[in-house]
Amino acid sequence: MSEEQFLDVAVEAAKNAGEIIRKGFYQTKNVEHKGQVDLVTETDKACEDFIFNHLQKHFPDHKFIGEETSAALGATADLTDEPTWIVDPLDGTTNFVHGFPFVCVSIGLTIGKIPTVGVVYNPIMNELFTAIHGKGAFLNDSPIKASSQDELVKALLVTEAGTKRDKNTLDDTTNRINKLLYKIRSIRMCGSLALNMCGVACGRLDLCYELGFGGPWDVAAGAVILREAGGHVFDP
Amino acid sequence: MSEEQFLDVAVEAAKNAGEIIRKGFYQTKNVEHKGQVDLVTETDKACEDFIFNHLQKHFPDHKFIGEETSAALGATADLTDEPTWIVDPLDGTTNFVHGFPFVCVSIGLTIGKIPTVGVVYNPIMNELFTAIHGKGAFLNDSPIKASSQDELVKALLVTEAGTKRDKNTLDDTTNRINKLLYKIRSIRMCGSLALNMCGVACGRLDLCYELGFGGPWDVAAGAVILREAGGHVFDP
Repeated sequence: MSEEQFLDVAVEAAKNAGEIIRKGFYQTKNVEHKGQVDLVTETDKACEDFIFNHLQKHFPDHKFIGEETSAALGATADLTDEPTWIVDPLDGTTNFVHGFPFVCVSIGLTIGKIPTVGVVYNPIMNELFTAIHGKGAFLNDSPIKASSQDELVKALLVTEAGTKRDKNTLDDTTNRINKLLYKIRSIRMCGSLALNMCGVACGRLDLCYELGFGGPWDVAAGAVILREAGGHVFDP
Repeated sequence: MSEEQFLDVAVEAAKNAGEIIRKGFYQTKNVEHKGQVDLVTETDKACEDFIFNHLQKHFPDHKFIGEETSAALGATADLTDEPTWIVDPLDGTTNFVHGFPFVCVSIGLTIGKIPTVGVVYNPIMNELFTAIHGKGAFLNDSPIKASSQDELVKALLVTEAGTKRDKNTLDDTTNRINKLLYKIRSIRMCGSLALNMCGVACGRLDLCYELGFGGPWDVAAGAVILREAGGHVFDP
């Protein structure tokens, strides 16, 4: 089985899950006052179920790590050398609830623990980011390149405020932003780490950092895409 | 001449200017290292010239306040009771330079100093926000409504880091964000005040504030759209 076949199946899964997200997205405002949390859970779960079943049908021997599955287990399965799909069925949950168009499906595949295939699909903006290790990165089938900007003062940075609201974390978050604003051109916050990484991969943004994100499902696909676009990924 | 006719002509102007922006947007990355400032100036100016000429052809007696014209004059013309078009030919300049898809044309009309017609057009995402005073607000011809969220803890706030980099302003900016993060769900920064206001108008975002923005051209259209969507606009 070739990496191209892995990618094709992942794209199929992402597009179908994207359709589930798109339907929920345009319903969101109607249910705002009677249970937005349920809608999210339902959409998340329906997407992950679809993706899990689709991948398992094609690759019954592959392992699977999904955000919802891990949440249900209360733990993330250990990554092994086996081919392992790492899936965030809906990244940008807050955006989804509010109807803000930065939401996506993120599907990554590691083989021998190396991120090998990455698919990130934003069904609202109809943007499909794909990459295979060693074979370049693409946005809607056109090759993409990370920014070659080497002057910090001209760089556009993307990050997030995070979800923690204790004083230490919040002070660190805003102090970091304060210090960075002296050095960079400006800052964006859009609410999806996977899409932030893809934004850097296609050169719209120059830099991205995030602390305390949810889990490997947020970055597994984005890391392949960003590296294949010529970008650098660090986990200090 | 009816307000609907004013709106129609403004939409025509915005769509044509949007086409100029769209062309420049996809060129941007090629000229990154040989004069991005020139590209912006050229695109801004070409858009404002087109809009000015288009409006003047249809409404030769109306006044005009444009960002580029004002920059050239070194001052903003005083607002009178005459019908006055207030135009930002390209809001989201940094996004335009970087190829980040939040850019727009903003065209507002005041009559008797009252914001009466508003058009905000994002040519990259193909979103056209329109409103006439007293006649509702629309996104791509569908009616829109501002969020009815009345709990701050569930609110999604949008703001910007601004362009000033002196210590006092920066400290104020990040201290304000720090204090707000205790109260709200999360924060977005997308780089266009006109689109931020429209984001609130269509309920994707709940709150927006900005200090020290460029001029009336950033808000003239957004204010009509947001108010007509049921939102509130304050200038403390």
